Amino acid sequence: MTERVEPSQPDLADLTIGVLGGTGEQGRGLARRWARAGLRVRVGSRQAQRAVAIAHDVAAGLPDADVAGDVNASVAAVSDVVVVAVPYDGHAALLATLVEELRGTVVVDVVNPLGFDKQGAFALAVPEGSAAGQAQSLLPGSSVVGAFHHVSAVHLLDDALAEVDTDVLVVGDDRAATDLVQRLADAIPGMRGVYAGRLRNAGQLEALTANLISVNRRYKVHAGVRLTDV
Amino acid sequence: MTERVEPSQPDLADLTIGVLGGTGEQGRGLARRWARAGLRVRVGSRQAQRAVAIAHDVAAGLPDADVAGDVNASVAAVSDVVVVAVPYDGHAALLATLVEELRGTVVVDVVNPLGFDKQGAFALAVPEGSAAGQAQSLLPGSSVVGAFHHVSAVHLLDDALAEVDTDVLVVGDDRAATDLVQRLADAIPGMRGVYAGRLRNAGQLEALTANLISVNRRYKVHAGVRLTDV
Repeated sequence: MTERVEPSQPDLADLTIGVLGGTGEQGRGLARRWARAGLRVRVGSRQAQRAVAIAHDVAAGLPDADVAGDVNASVAAVSDVVVVAVPYDGHAALLATLVEELRGTVVVDVVNPLGFDKQGAFALAVPEGSAAGQAQSLLPGSSVVGAFHHVSAVHLLDDALAEVDTDVLVVGDDRAATDLVQRLADAIPGMRGVYAGRLRNAGQLEALTANLISVNRRYKVHAGVRLTDV
Repeated sequence: MTERVEPSQPDLADLTIGVLGGTGEQGRGLARRWARAGLRVRVGSRQAQRAVAIAHDVAAGLPDADVAGDVNASVAAVSDVVVVAVPYDGHAALLATLVEELRGTVVVDVVNPLGFDKQGAFALAVPEGSAAGQAQSLLPGSSVVGAFHHVSAVHLLDDALAEVDTDVLVVGDDRAATDLVQRLADAIPGMRGVYAGRLRNAGQLEALTANLISVNRRYKVHAGVRLTDV
């Protein structure tokens, strides 16, 4: 795919991509894919030692990889774009501590607020309408984008899988930020970033993950989403 | 695709498919596709005369089509499966009048409760969580299924389009009913019915239509949804 880089859009190779909660499967999987794509990645965790260990795993077998780990606040401070991949449980509490570190930063919220019971997964009610909306309300100085909600961690972490066959639906109110996040999706082979509306329409993308979990159970798969006609 | 018909599943050719609100684009488009597939279709409207006129359009150029039109209540009473394709505005009011006619019937809710403003489409808050949930609460004697939310009416109504390239995500709590609705999707060339969870997860499918409207505007397309790995 030929990529047209707009003058206002930075070269991805010049950016530092931070992944908060990089010790979870989703964060680790995205970090691994970006490291494989040759991008500079910083893995954040509550404990520096744990982050360093995960960074080591993320860079395994990639001699040229530029990957390091540190506590979440340090990663937030040095990164140009920060992916929030923590459990919904600790989402608000973590972001509330990073208001200054994330000021002026593009924040990519990948969190799915879900509950589980005997009948499977269901969407939790979020006062701000979505995890991404909650992030934007906690981080008024940041540009929050919702994306990567439906990407299978199993597929991301499967090194034998050359491509991750899915579209990434990207929502946000700042065009430069959503453009950048689409390009972060495009940087992973098989993935395609597709603009899918404003931040107020993030909640249903997060909640859709509950449906995909039902699909996965019924059909014994790791379902992804593709849009037709785009 | 080879279809395995379970013994408990009726032959689609033996069923009467009612479409309430068949005068809207979505209802008319589905009715047309099922008529083209050789199924028996009844088109419902508030006015019998209008329903008859639409039925005539739906059957146009299909000499063997079994299509007729009548008022909504009569269509509901004679149909084995009833598709509700009315505007959300009149959704609750209509269903409240059809409790008896729809008793024991599979009701397929395709309604998307959306609002529109200068920034595009957004999901409306529905007290019951979704239009489909509202239908189930109004129709305790019916088995409500959510489906066909994302199918482009433009594509449905384009006779030159042999196939409608999309998956149909089907949610509901009654396995026989969701199986039947998946088969109604499979009956339309290009479409595939995919089970996507319980009725409590219908709201995000309805709301996702707001995102698809944003996709359509940005990319000048009529987007559909496909699930990968299924």
